[in-house]
Amino acid sequence: MGVVLNLENGKREAASIGQLIELTSGDMGRVNELILSKAGSDVQMIPEVANHLISSGGKRLRPMVTLAAAQMFGYSGDGHVKLATSVEFMHTATLLHDDVVDESGMRRGKKTARMIWGNQASVLVGDFLLGQAFRMMVDVGSLEALDILSTAATVIAEGEVMQLAAAKNLETTEDEHFAVIKAKTAALFSAAAEVGPVIAGATRNDRAALRSYGMNLGLAFQLIDDALDYGGSSKDLGKNVGDDFREGKVTLPVILSYRRGTPAERNFWKKAIEENVTDDASLEKAVGLMKRHGAIADTIGRAGHFGGIARDALAPLESTPQKQALLEVIDFCISRVA
Amino acid sequence: MGVVLNLENGKREAASIGQLIELTSGDMGRVNELILSKAGSDVQMIPEVANHLISSGGKRLRPMVTLAAAQMFGYSGDGHVKLATSVEFMHTATLLHDDVVDESGMRRGKKTARMIWGNQASVLVGDFLLGQAFRMMVDVGSLEALDILSTAATVIAEGEVMQLAAAKNLETTEDEHFAVIKAKTAALFSAAAEVGPVIAGATRNDRAALRSYGMNLGLAFQLIDDALDYGGSSKDLGKNVGDDFREGKVTLPVILSYRRGTPAERNFWKKAIEENVTDDASLEKAVGLMKRHGAIADTIGRAGHFGGIARDALAPLESTPQKQALLEVIDFCISRVA
Repeated sequence: MGVVLNLENGKREAASIGQLIELTSGDMGRVNELILSKAGSDVQMIPEVANHLISSGGKRLRPMVTLAAAQMFGYSGDGHVKLATSVEFMHTATLLHDDVVDESGMRRGKKTARMIWGNQASVLVGDFLLGQAFRMMVDVGSLEALDILSTAATVIAEGEVMQLAAAKNLETTEDEHFAVIKAKTAALFSAAAEVGPVIAGATRNDRAALRSYGMNLGLAFQLIDDALDYGGSSKDLGKNVGDDFREGKVTLPVILSYRRGTPAERNFWKKAIEENVTDDASLEKAVGLMKRHGAIADTIGRAGHFGGIARDALAPLESTPQKQALLEVIDFCISRVA
Repeated sequence: MGVVLNLENGKREAASIGQLIELTSGDMGRVNELILSKAGSDVQMIPEVANHLISSGGKRLRPMVTLAAAQMFGYSGDGHVKLATSVEFMHTATLLHDDVVDESGMRRGKKTARMIWGNQASVLVGDFLLGQAFRMMVDVGSLEALDILSTAATVIAEGEVMQLAAAKNLETTEDEHFAVIKAKTAALFSAAAEVGPVIAGATRNDRAALRSYGMNLGLAFQLIDDALDYGGSSKDLGKNVGDDFREGKVTLPVILSYRRGTPAERNFWKKAIEENVTDDASLEKAVGLMKRHGAIADTIGRAGHFGGIARDALAPLESTPQKQALLEVIDFCISRVA
């Protein structure tokens, strides 16, 4: 791939989330059990559809963040396991609905649920998982955590509608685009991180630190995801390079290339995004234009900017293995393009 | 229409919900304000889509039930207004998703949101309203009410999937069908009724009474709705006679006609439901077969059965204007076919 990231510490190999996985492996065992049990139903189609996506090898980054953030402040109950599972269900529900909205055919290297069971099942099983997510939160009994996660649910939907309303609009500004990804992606990372200190009874400052960490991590994560779509290998990504292009998505690499392009190049982008001229030759040309204008590199640069803010959000906190693990997640997200 | 209902008291004119409307009119003013404000968003498409459905003249029966049920036990805060609004938002979200699942063109006499703004907007605005519903519940702060309503959200989705899995299956038994409508329709009526006594701090028995009232009212309501689709006028119903038939829905009038039919008649039903032969002549024949086998009358009879259980659920409660109003709702639901 053309893009190699220089990490701040000079390492060029990809960072890992090994420390996060290790610290949360016991709790994640319980999360995975809870996922299976709460995706269950006497209505056979529900576990079928839910498990198709759940078992498709997502990294479960969000629930691990919740668990580590709770551990970090000495939480000792089992509420963090339920909240982590809720967060993953909210994420899964969003993916099911997203695939319907985007009319996607592939997700994580597998056919999407809507291609196998239809749009109807994807909408309804998403609703079911969202309902189960709320039941688990209620079961934990923290009104503050409920407030944070239910607000996130609203904001995510708002972000998705914002994205829909701006669909195929090449004049979208960078700021407008950041508002969309902040709502549709970063809000859930932020909530996932904040509910940890909340149920642990941590201070207002600690809550704010984790909230800010999650928000900026989420922004970095989404930007890298958008960069990868024009430069990752489909093995790593679970989707094919150019999926966003073929779906006519106006992501940051496209926004930057369009804004920086010549009139002729802008016409190319209009044909591609507005008129769906997205054959392989067009994709190749698109990637070429992105490179010429530094659009992918600068998308990664913007991700680095937010990653830095996430890092500083945690700076005042005591050094713990959990803090170290959460810092590694930032590097991991950004180094996915390396 | 051919079906005239004999109410228990011998009256043949339609019952009304006048008493319920009167008792809750002050609170409903606040519910309606809250609906408008909580359907608002800086993302312009959200209030557009939401208000299209919200302003289309639903009766708002569910929130009125919540308000009356809270008043009945002397509730004096403002939580019942928020919970009633949550209930209406859950209902609205379900309708938005239902129209996508059923590919419906009309709802309450207007084009469905999906015909104007697309399936995507309907899915996402539904998600937004569901998120807002949960935020309002959280704001009320009753974990018991949250438990009841979040469980209902899950059960509703489960019921919808059950219905999807049984779609076009003419061998569906009456019991299987009751399980579907109990989940997809009656669960929300039940929750709407139960949260009233819950926030009023009523006894366990009072809660159980209202829960049972709501569940059986919901069953009666849905059965009458299904009967009306083969015998109501489109003015009353906000949808056209035969909509269910044209969508190939296996409702109780169809189930009864199919089970009671001759082999030739069953072939007719298979053509209609499984192969979509649903022209006007087929609809006329379908209604004729239903009359021959008493399928509509017996659907109404089953509704009367559940209505009777709903009535007896409230029997031990002290006589109050609220109780009287809730009893009238039963008659109203059933007399819609008169």
